[in-house]
Amino acid sequence: MMEPQENTNDDTAPSPAPPPLPRERIPVQKGSVCSRSYFMVVMVFFHVYVLNVIALLLYVHYNSGSEEGRSSRDFSSRSSGHKVAEPLDTQPPDPGFTRKMHLPRLEGIRVGHVQKVSLVPGKVHEMKTLSLKPLLFEIPHFLSDEECAVVMRLAQLKGLMESQVMVPEGQEELNQQLNLSPEEIFHLLDLNQDGQLQQHEILTHSRVRDGIWLTPENLREIYAGLNADQDGNGLLSLEEFGQLSSDAFQRFLFQRGVKRSQLVRNSRHTWLYQGQGAHQVLRELRNRVMRLTRLPPSLVELSEPLQVVRYEQGGHYHAHHDSGPVYPETTCTHTLLAANTTSPFQTSCRYITVLFYLNNVEEGGETTFPVADNRTYEEVSLIQNDVDLLDTRRHCDKGNLRVKPTRGTAVFWYNYLSDGRGWVGEQDEYSLHGGCVVTRGIKWVANNWINVDPDYHRQARYQQLVSQPEETQDPQTDTNPEQYTDTHQDL
Amino acid sequence: MMEPQENTNDDTAPSPAPPPLPRERIPVQKGSVCSRSYFMVVMVFFHVYVLNVIALLLYVHYNSGSEEGRSSRDFSSRSSGHKVAEPLDTQPPDPGFTRKMHLPRLEGIRVGHVQKVSLVPGKVHEMKTLSLKPLLFEIPHFLSDEECAVVMRLAQLKGLMESQVMVPEGQEELNQQLNLSPEEIFHLLDLNQDGQLQQHEILTHSRVRDGIWLTPENLREIYAGLNADQDGNGLLSLEEFGQLSSDAFQRFLFQRGVKRSQLVRNSRHTWLYQGQGAHQVLRELRNRVMRLTRLPPSLVELSEPLQVVRYEQGGHYHAHHDSGPVYPETTCTHTLLAANTTSPFQTSCRYITVLFYLNNVEEGGETTFPVADNRTYEEVSLIQNDVDLLDTRRHCDKGNLRVKPTRGTAVFWYNYLSDGRGWVGEQDEYSLHGGCVVTRGIKWVANNWINVDPDYHRQARYQQLVSQPEETQDPQTDTNPEQYTDTHQDL
Repeated sequence: MMEPQENTNDDTAPSPAPPPLPRERIPVQKGSVCSRSYFMVVMVFFHVYVLNVIALLLYVHYNSGSEEGRSSRDFSSRSSGHKVAEPLDTQPPDPGFTRKMHLPRLEGIRVGHVQKVSLVPGKVHEMKTLSLKPLLFEIPHFLSDEECAVVMRLAQLKGLMESQVMVPEGQEELNQQLNLSPEEIFHLLDLNQDGQLQQHEILTHSRVRDGIWLTPENLREIYAGLNADQDGNGLLSLEEFGQLSSDAFQRFLFQRGVKRSQLVRNSRHTWLYQGQGAHQVLRELRNRVMRLTRLPPSLVELSEPLQVVRYEQGGHYHAHHDSGPVYPETTCTHTLLAANTTSPFQTSCRYITVLFYLNNVEEGGETTFPVADNRTYEEVSLIQNDVDLLDTRRHCDKGNLRVKPTRGTAVFWYNYLSDGRGWVGEQDEYSLHGGCVVTRGIKWVANNWINVDPDYHRQARYQQLVSQPEETQDPQTDTNPEQYTDTHQDL
Repeated sequence: MMEPQENTNDDTAPSPAPPPLPRERIPVQKGSVCSRSYFMVVMVFFHVYVLNVIALLLYVHYNSGSEEGRSSRDFSSRSSGHKVAEPLDTQPPDPGFTRKMHLPRLEGIRVGHVQKVSLVPGKVHEMKTLSLKPLLFEIPHFLSDEECAVVMRLAQLKGLMESQVMVPEGQEELNQQLNLSPEEIFHLLDLNQDGQLQQHEILTHSRVRDGIWLTPENLREIYAGLNADQDGNGLLSLEEFGQLSSDAFQRFLFQRGVKRSQLVRNSRHTWLYQGQGAHQVLRELRNRVMRLTRLPPSLVELSEPLQVVRYEQGGHYHAHHDSGPVYPETTCTHTLLAANTTSPFQTSCRYITVLFYLNNVEEGGETTFPVADNRTYEEVSLIQNDVDLLDTRRHCDKGNLRVKPTRGTAVFWYNYLSDGRGWVGEQDEYSLHGGCVVTRGIKWVANNWINVDPDYHRQARYQQLVSQPEETQDPQTDTNPEQYTDTHQDL
């Protein structure tokens, strides 16, 4: 239709390109004003505008590039975390180290320190430091009584199964698979390499291997029944050990019968999914855990479901680590698909344990941290002849720290140290803990574990792998925190 | 001159205000094109441009507003410090709390952890965690042998004075000033309020009050000499105490003579200024401390000068805290001018101690941390009848941690905890330390203390107060890190 008119006018006087001055002052010739000069003004404005927008966008990009996107689902989320500021010309010692995600770690300050945390809109919780080794906190009233009741009901509806079966399977095959001579087994068991098997060397082994919790008394009974300790010095020499068959202890115990109280773990449990479509209380619980731990939502969402555990009277869980040590060959159960390798060392890589007490226990059932804030951690000194600190049926009172179960209270701790660069480092051995025997009543707890691969790149690969299909899922996602908060208030 | 032409054209056809469409499609009448329509286009572009610039500037401002300006001399410097990222809708629990400066705190991770630090251009130092309570690090080769020699020579040139004089002054006046009855004094000394004065109650008091380090044997000697403990049970009752004059112990010791080895501190020291005009080695030392601690330069520059200490053979420093506990009334020596109040509780507010070993000691002279990483800190259990953990002449071997002096090595620790919000919190009682007796040779050390007022606003006022005159000083300031680094390389 209408065309611009720049070419319809005579272009007689060459006018120099004017600076972008205010329009009123442009020295234009009256005759050619309309087409040429106005066009130039428009063009100058247009170009200045475009250039300024580009410059500002670049400025925005480079200024916020290192801080944007704190809480996003994807792995590119960053948070300044607990990394200290780089001052002056101090460069990070490892310049090749560039990670997009840093895991914040709460500050314990000192035992007994109380800090306020915001977990539920309009409410402030108090979080108390119980120990620094492990970094352990207690938050009373984390769950309301109604929420505790809902979780227990949901677990009962789903049905609970034995946490540990009486007779472990697959042990015989492993023995055959490894194909070790009695002499080789002897040297593996002989931790201090003194040529004799002390009681605690046998005890440690049987607990790990068979899941049967032998006490020194049990062991003496077995020695007597099998006539194993022929010189009666309480130790097994290589000669004495060689005369036993590889499953002699197990067969002896079988014949005599193994009670549930003789297992490492004596409880029933189930798993409750917390993602889309799950009960509102379970999803809210996960959101609260996100706010508490301040970890990226993507990490929390991809972690194990909620484990609900019921201990009957007499139930217990001897002291253990929720997740194992990290060696170069270790792989995590949750990132195994992305690992591209198979490894005989596999662990659950539970960076954080959040433990919820769902009811008040009449008597017993404390959570014990036998070596919390100990000056040193020595595995061999845990089991002594008179006191076995791992035994939560007998020696809970000898440990350093015990938490009494109180309905609605949450405790949480880090099973791994920081690596000093904002990621998961070594296992924190001090995180050793157990459930003391329930002497009266029933005990209900739930566990939320947050799984993080200590290998940053493997975690990144894993999250990329699993996050892509999820994009195309049901748009009724519950990851919008605002929507979530509103729903919670309606509850 | 030239006037805009909007009124020179006939405005016959009223054209409706067009939407800001691409220029070619504006439906203008050919006759009035030049003036009116072009003007509108220009105006639309201009307004869009201005609005966009404003919007982008606002965006930039609110995005980078919380992270800019990390290391500046003034108190407005920010650093993300060790503050954890605020996730999702979790607000800081105390919204009224706004501070401009955060103090970064290094991560200890675990005892034995080694991290690399960059302190000198082109060189990497290793920093090893020695304990977490207190947060304590060791950095070998922090100083070169030549630098150690320079510091010792400078101290000798300036001249050293006794760290503690034999007879403390001003005690008598204080006693009179307070005007306490013997009964009142008795109850102050009776820490456990059992109506009797135990040995350790007397010992603790005499060390703090007189600076004389009594041992249980000394005390028995004094009791016998003064016939103080008439019933011979090793305790002083109120009756027995009332029969002694207020300075009876002191006068008894005077008559018998006090040896230097009986003082809390047996050494000589001097102070070396590290600011403008100071020896290059001393200034470089301060810069290295800045890089090590990552604290704002302004804090480090306004701290105490370097203290150089010489222990002769037989010299010692019994276990003590470098800085006292923080009560609401406590004021810091360094911010006293800005405090506007006088307070009987005054301490040096030494947030960090950096201790340099300037020579190798032939035997003894270790730095002891008797309760490092202890599970608990109980003041009363430090002095027992058989072992006094504070006594560095007798019981250095009983403490938890000892650092052997090695020329050029630095150790540093925090005397205060974090407050959890990026500032100085409570005293870390575990920072208790002392210098073990030098059994052979001479020991040279130097101390750098970094003074920070636990009251943030008092520190801020103080820095504003003292930083203003400094601006007008000699422009040859040595705070430019680049210039500094160059000079160092020329050294």
